[in-house]
Amino acid sequence: MSLVVQKFGGTSVADAQLIRSVATRIVATRNRGDDVVAVVSAMGDATDLLSDLAYQVCANPDKREMDLLLSTGELVSSSLLAMALRDIGQEAVSLSGLQAGIRTERRFGKARITGIDAKRIEKEVSRGKVVIVAGFQGATDDMDVTTLGRGGSDLTAVALAVQLQATMCEQFTDVEGVFTADPRLVSDARKLKDISYEEMLELASYGAKVLHPRAVELGSVHNVPIFVASSFSSAPGTLIHGGTLMEVSEKVRGIAHDTDVAKVTVLGVPDQPGAVAGLFEPLSEAQIRVDTIVQNTSAENVTDVTFIVSRLELGNAISVVEPAIRSINARGWVADERLAKVSVVGAAMRTAPGYAARMFRALFEAGINIEMVTTSEVRITCIVEADRVPEAVRALHNAFNLATLDGDA
Amino acid sequence: MSLVVQKFGGTSVADAQLIRSVATRIVATRNRGDDVVAVVSAMGDATDLLSDLAYQVCANPDKREMDLLLSTGELVSSSLLAMALRDIGQEAVSLSGLQAGIRTERRFGKARITGIDAKRIEKEVSRGKVVIVAGFQGATDDMDVTTLGRGGSDLTAVALAVQLQATMCEQFTDVEGVFTADPRLVSDARKLKDISYEEMLELASYGAKVLHPRAVELGSVHNVPIFVASSFSSAPGTLIHGGTLMEVSEKVRGIAHDTDVAKVTVLGVPDQPGAVAGLFEPLSEAQIRVDTIVQNTSAENVTDVTFIVSRLELGNAISVVEPAIRSINARGWVADERLAKVSVVGAAMRTAPGYAARMFRALFEAGINIEMVTTSEVRITCIVEADRVPEAVRALHNAFNLATLDGDA
Repeated sequence: MSLVVQKFGGTSVADAQLIRSVATRIVATRNRGDDVVAVVSAMGDATDLLSDLAYQVCANPDKREMDLLLSTGELVSSSLLAMALRDIGQEAVSLSGLQAGIRTERRFGKARITGIDAKRIEKEVSRGKVVIVAGFQGATDDMDVTTLGRGGSDLTAVALAVQLQATMCEQFTDVEGVFTADPRLVSDARKLKDISYEEMLELASYGAKVLHPRAVELGSVHNVPIFVASSFSSAPGTLIHGGTLMEVSEKVRGIAHDTDVAKVTVLGVPDQPGAVAGLFEPLSEAQIRVDTIVQNTSAENVTDVTFIVSRLELGNAISVVEPAIRSINARGWVADERLAKVSVVGAAMRTAPGYAARMFRALFEAGINIEMVTTSEVRITCIVEADRVPEAVRALHNAFNLATLDGDA
Repeated sequence: MSLVVQKFGGTSVADAQLIRSVATRIVATRNRGDDVVAVVSAMGDATDLLSDLAYQVCANPDKREMDLLLSTGELVSSSLLAMALRDIGQEAVSLSGLQAGIRTERRFGKARITGIDAKRIEKEVSRGKVVIVAGFQGATDDMDVTTLGRGGSDLTAVALAVQLQATMCEQFTDVEGVFTADPRLVSDARKLKDISYEEMLELASYGAKVLHPRAVELGSVHNVPIFVASSFSSAPGTLIHGGTLMEVSEKVRGIAHDTDVAKVTVLGVPDQPGAVAGLFEPLSEAQIRVDTIVQNTSAENVTDVTFIVSRLELGNAISVVEPAIRSINARGWVADERLAKVSVVGAAMRTAPGYAARMFRALFEAGINIEMVTTSEVRITCIVEADRVPEAVRALHNAFNLATLDGDA
């Protein structure tokens, strides 16, 4: 008997009626002949409400306590789902992250899973039960509750699929799968039947908010197929896997965009060994993620250094950069928050040249200025003005003929 | 350094502002020189809301899952209180029942505490932290979460006080202490400075809803003084203890009443060995608590048997009694739900006679009919019509001069 891990996001368990629907779906999977371990997120906006409560009590909630507080959201949805399953005759048991044996490092708010002691889960599954695991949470070795950060439930599900050697990790969410571009921007965006881990990783980290990149990465390392589908329809979803893709003729798989982008330019950096390091080391120590660093050609022994951070982190970045600027004798800084990334993603780029040129031309023809460019093996990203994102995405979707299955053949 | 256990009920932590007040009170106790372990109930009506949610999902929620669900209410209030303490500079840590080492039997919904492994609590206290323990909950040996039933947080607090050898268990609630009668019924009811465990037990189980009887009983067995006071005022509360009472001159300590009373009379029970047992054994097996059994004088070899149950349990009791009636060849049953108990409580009754006569006379003079009578060592209870309870309590409060401190001297 094979085992499937199914994850249900917050919108999928937002009320009692939806929880009963999820129970029905799980029973359908059991009837197909699979054992099921289900992972659930907190109901609807429960996590936000709990967080609000903490900020009503104090301005700066302690992180350990915040994690214990937030973890209750998933305990509520898990126990309700187990009740709903038992109510329709399916034996079920819900487990907190601690009870499920999900061990993490002691790092509240964004702990990483260090291991899973799955004995309890395996015992319950072997007794014919559906096991519901509260997503987003784990516990340290001394039983303190931790949370895994954004997209934590996605990660719980894939980690369990790895540990339990599941045949599949199914992620049920409020979107129908992975599209060639955001359907809200591009009316003829097409749902992909399948996609590689690598491509999905580029799409997800660049704003296709379907599945958390850490979950995709973990699936990729252990080669667990991940199926993304809507819990509100029976439409076929998208399979993320490491095998040969069905739609091999396509070179470009999708257009991603991300508007959470800010640019910082440090002016007049002395062109000396160590000056640039003196800028980025403090940022790294402050755990501020920086990408797309560009250093202008040096003039008169000084240079401008530009980099990209998340818009949310801009304030932090500036407060770290200011003392660094003084210590390396740079001139000052300017920042621009009104930026965004648009990306062309596809594994085939690796072997075939010419995609960058085609991308730049499409943006040029749409009259969109490119501020910076960055690439990976399977992605080309242009930084453009945030206001122009919808046009840019549509222009690129057209330029690469993504609306038709064999567009790029 | 001595240690105090403080318990804060649901109304005391009903919102963010109140939680901050509780934090201030705890810090005041620390400043007095005591270590503090605090036990909290769920915020306001949180437990009811969680329970409602379960009944929205299904008509008959599984008990194990219900306990996991309900336990989250206390996790929320505990973590918020720990945040509030840290916010005003007091190191604090919140622990679930499981983390706090509160072990119970595997009996969901009304588990009994089998032991407390207080290592974690002791470690945190020795580091100068206030430890907040989620009330009302524990865990089985295999880490399943259980709840302790009604008044569970009271019990958690006293059990911790016993285990930690606390000098005192302080119970902060929405009443100011233990009164000579319900102040809502008797305008000149007087707050008692202290009361014995035994008297408190009789008052509490007969409806003075200040503190759960199981908590009083546990305090009595281990001789832990329990102080009951309001968390909304600084008025002095009532000390429940096993030593010599301050107000020794009083013979009667209080008048209790309980309107959760129903009477069942089984008619025409054959006057044979085993017939009455055939009636009460099934009730005992169904865990229905029966008290005040009266058997009428036998006439023509049949007898009527009358007993009292909680009004909430009447339906259950009837469904158990009906088949029993058939099997012992009794004639049938009648029930009366409109009844109540009024009780006169005082340890001095044990040694001095005449209290019953004085009670019956007071009720007679008020024109109140006595349906049944039951007594304990320190209590006399009359069953009367529920409608007459206010008059009965006032009449007894007057008859025993309870409004004045030396009334009975």
